[in-house]
Amino acid sequence: MQGNQPGQALISSGPSRWQHALLEPDTVALIGASGDPTKNTSRPQRFLQQCNWPGKIVPINPSRDELFGVKSYKSVLDYPDSIDQAFVMTAAAHIPLVIEQCGRKRIPVVTIYTDGYAEIGEDGLAQQEALVRLAKHWGIRLLGPNCIGLIQAHRGLALTVNAVIDTDRPVPGSYAMISQSGSMIGSLMTRGQARGIGFSTLISVGNECDLDLADMIEACASQAQTKAIGLFMETIRDARRFRQAVAHAMSLDKPVAAYLIGRSALGNQLAQSHTGALAGSGLALSSFLDDCGVVRLQSMEALIEIAPMLRPRAAQRNRSQGKSRVAVLTTTGGAAAMVMDNLGLHGIEPAYADASLQDLVEASIRSIDSTHPVPKLRAAPIIDLTLAGSAIQYAGVLAALAQWDACDAAVAVVGSSARSKPALAMHPILEHAPSFTTKPIAAFFAPQADEALALLSAKHIAGFRTPESCADAIAAIMRWRRPRQVEHAALGQASRSLLEHLSIAFQVKNQQPNEAQAYELFESLSIPCSPHQVFELSDLAQVMKDESLDQYVLKIVSHEITHKSDLGGVLLDLDRYSSWDKALEALRDRVMQHDAILATQANPTNRARSGLRQVLVQKKQKALGEVLIGYRYDAVVGPVVVLGIGGIEAALNPHVALRPAPIDMEDAFAMIAEIPGLLRYQGFRNLPKGDMKALALVFIMPEGLAHGVMAVDAVVRLRVPAKKQPR
Amino acid sequence: MQGNQPGQALISSGPSRWQHALLEPDTVALIGASGDPTKNTSRPQRFLQQCNWPGKIVPINPSRDELFGVKSYKSVLDYPDSIDQAFVMTAAAHIPLVIEQCGRKRIPVVTIYTDGYAEIGEDGLAQQEALVRLAKHWGIRLLGPNCIGLIQAHRGLALTVNAVIDTDRPVPGSYAMISQSGSMIGSLMTRGQARGIGFSTLISVGNECDLDLADMIEACASQAQTKAIGLFMETIRDARRFRQAVAHAMSLDKPVAAYLIGRSALGNQLAQSHTGALAGSGLALSSFLDDCGVVRLQSMEALIEIAPMLRPRAAQRNRSQGKSRVAVLTTTGGAAAMVMDNLGLHGIEPAYADASLQDLVEASIRSIDSTHPVPKLRAAPIIDLTLAGSAIQYAGVLAALAQWDACDAAVAVVGSSARSKPALAMHPILEHAPSFTTKPIAAFFAPQADEALALLSAKHIAGFRTPESCADAIAAIMRWRRPRQVEHAALGQASRSLLEHLSIAFQVKNQQPNEAQAYELFESLSIPCSPHQVFELSDLAQVMKDESLDQYVLKIVSHEITHKSDLGGVLLDLDRYSSWDKALEALRDRVMQHDAILATQANPTNRARSGLRQVLVQKKQKALGEVLIGYRYDAVVGPVVVLGIGGIEAALNPHVALRPAPIDMEDAFAMIAEIPGLLRYQGFRNLPKGDMKALALVFIMPEGLAHGVMAVDAVVRLRVPAKKQPR
Repeated sequence: MQGNQPGQALISSGPSRWQHALLEPDTVALIGASGDPTKNTSRPQRFLQQCNWPGKIVPINPSRDELFGVKSYKSVLDYPDSIDQAFVMTAAAHIPLVIEQCGRKRIPVVTIYTDGYAEIGEDGLAQQEALVRLAKHWGIRLLGPNCIGLIQAHRGLALTVNAVIDTDRPVPGSYAMISQSGSMIGSLMTRGQARGIGFSTLISVGNECDLDLADMIEACASQAQTKAIGLFMETIRDARRFRQAVAHAMSLDKPVAAYLIGRSALGNQLAQSHTGALAGSGLALSSFLDDCGVVRLQSMEALIEIAPMLRPRAAQRNRSQGKSRVAVLTTTGGAAAMVMDNLGLHGIEPAYADASLQDLVEASIRSIDSTHPVPKLRAAPIIDLTLAGSAIQYAGVLAALAQWDACDAAVAVVGSSARSKPALAMHPILEHAPSFTTKPIAAFFAPQADEALALLSAKHIAGFRTPESCADAIAAIMRWRRPRQVEHAALGQASRSLLEHLSIAFQVKNQQPNEAQAYELFESLSIPCSPHQVFELSDLAQVMKDESLDQYVLKIVSHEITHKSDLGGVLLDLDRYSSWDKALEALRDRVMQHDAILATQANPTNRARSGLRQVLVQKKQKALGEVLIGYRYDAVVGPVVVLGIGGIEAALNPHVALRPAPIDMEDAFAMIAEIPGLLRYQGFRNLPKGDMKALALVFIMPEGLAHGVMAVDAVVRLRVPAKKQPR
Repeated sequence: MQGNQPGQALISSGPSRWQHALLEPDTVALIGASGDPTKNTSRPQRFLQQCNWPGKIVPINPSRDELFGVKSYKSVLDYPDSIDQAFVMTAAAHIPLVIEQCGRKRIPVVTIYTDGYAEIGEDGLAQQEALVRLAKHWGIRLLGPNCIGLIQAHRGLALTVNAVIDTDRPVPGSYAMISQSGSMIGSLMTRGQARGIGFSTLISVGNECDLDLADMIEACASQAQTKAIGLFMETIRDARRFRQAVAHAMSLDKPVAAYLIGRSALGNQLAQSHTGALAGSGLALSSFLDDCGVVRLQSMEALIEIAPMLRPRAAQRNRSQGKSRVAVLTTTGGAAAMVMDNLGLHGIEPAYADASLQDLVEASIRSIDSTHPVPKLRAAPIIDLTLAGSAIQYAGVLAALAQWDACDAAVAVVGSSARSKPALAMHPILEHAPSFTTKPIAAFFAPQADEALALLSAKHIAGFRTPESCADAIAAIMRWRRPRQVEHAALGQASRSLLEHLSIAFQVKNQQPNEAQAYELFESLSIPCSPHQVFELSDLAQVMKDESLDQYVLKIVSHEITHKSDLGGVLLDLDRYSSWDKALEALRDRVMQHDAILATQANPTNRARSGLRQVLVQKKQKALGEVLIGYRYDAVVGPVVVLGIGGIEAALNPHVALRPAPIDMEDAFAMIAEIPGLLRYQGFRNLPKGDMKALALVFIMPEGLAHGVMAVDAVVRLRVPAKKQPR
């Protein structure tokens, strides 16, 4: 039996067997091919022939001897020579047999176009899992199902059902594009080629039942023609392998960029349901991509247009932690203002012209023409030479910007001449863009200027059609950071024992930890907790009789209730009650009231769970304020750290900072800086200064020494282990 | 002497004399025209000739007898017949003489291309003002200076220096475009025509020294060919006239749309400095546009692509105050998810398919083909027919959406077929878009699909190139409200006297009102104020000796200081001090400390103004919280009402709601709803409920009866009357 095992390819340098069979096959079987040119299933053969793919096509059709001039077979087993890849378009019912035949024929990769699997729900998922088991048995790697195929432009391998080939031949380029939306591969190809941007490979990954996004990143990174990789993304199936694959591509100097659908809550929900994936948080996914070193974009067009800016990161200089400064050069104020306006929305600042830039400009113009007038640059947000600016001045300033230390990127904005005289207008940019070795350069054209865009693309210079996509791409590059290795600290023995104990209660009794147990766990992690004690209802008044009520808070203790405050389960102002008994009575009343409301509702799972059995008494803390720190397990990207403002503010202003765990001090301080509300604890407007280092220590690593911070509420929820996605 | 006076045109129905001379001239003089085709000043003549403009060209050039085959003259006075419009390209020094000559020649409109006026600063502004005076004297209306000209497509009047005509002939259409950035008229024209969208007229307004944006809206509205008007905007020169012009255009069933540069603070600053305009707030400007009934867009491409959606508003049904619901129909999930994701960012909700839609779909498909299978629509955010969806199904659902009450707009998303078979793919949209009489319909195509876009444009159906611009346009239409008339309440006698008194002190002594005077004004407006008294320092301890410190707050009183808290000028916790003298001493120390810091700084205007002379003692108020209400005079749009969260929150979360004043109860409640932080005073999470009606009453109209609200701090600042912009 032949075929590779999953994961083996991750550290290899050249393409593995399945990679070669997928992207450079010599013989391809089209199983379920049709001879009717109006049918989708006729497309792969027609497209391969139209693109003059030099390999051998083996149509498999039980009722025909020949399709479009090529001899066809009943089954792959009837074909006399070896086959590298099978593209399957038959009805789902036949696919198990097809896989068995491919296995017997020792075909290393099978791509399944047929749909109706995980994307339609439970039944489809079960069928999909059965296919994976069968393929594994036969040593076959599967791409799909619900996969529209792939296009390898250099050899004309248009092995796809995407109608794009009816109108467009793939133009070979150096950008590989991998899409989780099959229909988008044609859209991305046509939009790219309309700008003069060609692709090395375009791949639809379908449901990723076996080979997934990570494998495709690996495969494309191994292609000599590919210099950068773009991803049209909706979700991630295996975060660990994705991270490894991106790191591998970067180690080969092939940057990875991604456009992720799901900036809005609704979009996030849509994106993740589209191919039957797990639902994680869009924020976690974005933050994870940043953490992996992916250049993350917010628009589809920027994903295409950024291609020439995706150079090996080694050439990018180290930027300061402060805001990025971008120089915008123009002769047309309105268009440049649009670019700068959009850069401003991304938090980018203008690079204001100064004496050092003026000197550089003078020197560079002198070197072109010693008698040419040198413009006097104003310290304005835009370097506007106005319509009076000459081509020599434009070129001189551009050359100076390449050397000017005070800007982190430059945008050349061109007006009407980008359309009326593209060659002339592009000349300064074509000449000086190569000097931008340590920072990115981009161009934006105010008019419709396809020819100018193509002129730049041909020389691997980034040109943008809209000010929005231009700013998006620049911002993505400015935000980019090389991924760092942060080690997970080992969990101490005490914490491990506690967790084990809690897990058993969860598995056996389906019981989540209550607040007291959460504190116990936190204390084992050296997180200071506000003193507290759990009481049976009957004991409370007796034990606490000598204690002043106003020093304490009283809470319901429960294994079921996560949001105590929502149901009135927390009494903060105990001084309103004359005795502990009265306070207990008030708490009981509130909880009963809540239960009565719940009892009227339809959903029985929420009902009558809040019965008051135990209470927790906790010492009131006088402190600057409350923050919310979460360690969550995101269904898609795994453990994340979340920081937000605490108390009622958390509900009114739900903005949080999030990072994949673990994080270090630098991350922790960056997260604190992302929450403006936390300024109130940092000496803002003469307010007292909180111990931000103590705060940072708590959430970078529980073993820290966080003397200035204390847990005043605690929730621990164990997760139901996710059903393993079939691979 | 001939010529109209400013403002006269506002209520006329047909074009006035200057409007006719500007847009439909029979004879145009080109003053400063060049015979050298490489010079910009040769362009207007070359372009008029290239576009076969049927009128008479009169080149004015002192050293030539003929230019490009046309007899030229030394001066307009030498030309024997009458001239409708002069386009001036001479050096600034000659322009006064040119205007005089045009005056003597009784030319009603002069457009000035020459730059170097208000946009370069004070000197330029003075020269510009002189031109306006001169023109007024001669009864001439001026367009410009710094104006690149205009294009009237129906007659081929390419009276412009914009290089666009070198490559593109204007294609007549029904959309008029007016731009405050001259270079953009060519860019907008080429981008529009590349999508099959033609223009009736494109106008650059330059520095708007006389004729301005409002006049151009008027002029375009009077054109028979124009059905809708687009504005590429950076600012407004005269808010009152702008509002009137938009209302006038709408009264003629010609909607006005605008893209305003300046969403970021930086962009706002840039946009408003670009043509030497006053600096107002971008938020005020946006809110003003909404208030005028302008369809406001956030991207340039949406400004173009929205054109076919700009139908007379009467046809739009009244939408509920809730969120808008949009139905997205597709056969290609990924592309539709991008559109829905972007709609979500604008706060728009999906219209979920329900039984009533299913019934409508069934009926419409049956009416096309009674045997065709009817798709079962899921209650999902997107109506995805998948690749299996037939053309009949697509058409059937589209027809149903036009009738379905539960959606406020529909988007038809089309995949590869929009490129591979545009005529076939557009057929259902072309057929059913006309049924959308009560709500908008838009199309988005995943691939590069210029032919499909042109097919739709030809039938006045909106097609979008990017999901972002599609969502932008839909959101702008959904946000649109018909402007309402809200009357300014008359100011009472008491308030008027007080204001007069304060104004005199300001004019004579340059003295702003202090806090006590501000309260006085507020009380005259029936706004309840917290009881307070002003003391000389020496009197305080004696008068207050029997009062408990903890019932009061102590503040510095000053005519100069607006932000007392910033310099420690407010003592809230007086119970920390043993006597009134001690408290006073503490306040004095703080203020002295602040003065010492100021004394070390360079700017003398801030220095030593805070010397403590009087104090204000005010009763402490126990209330739910503090809000910030401002009545401001925005330099661009005039009086505005601002609402924000009060206290320290205002600085940490500077998000405010803003409306042009005056407002009514509906506006006031809408503003309250825009500030999430105000939920804490509305019973959120069992918090006490504040009197929101009282709050609303305070800021809709000071004469209201706001018993639940009280002013606890008050600042009144008189404005320096703005230097009148030259007209």
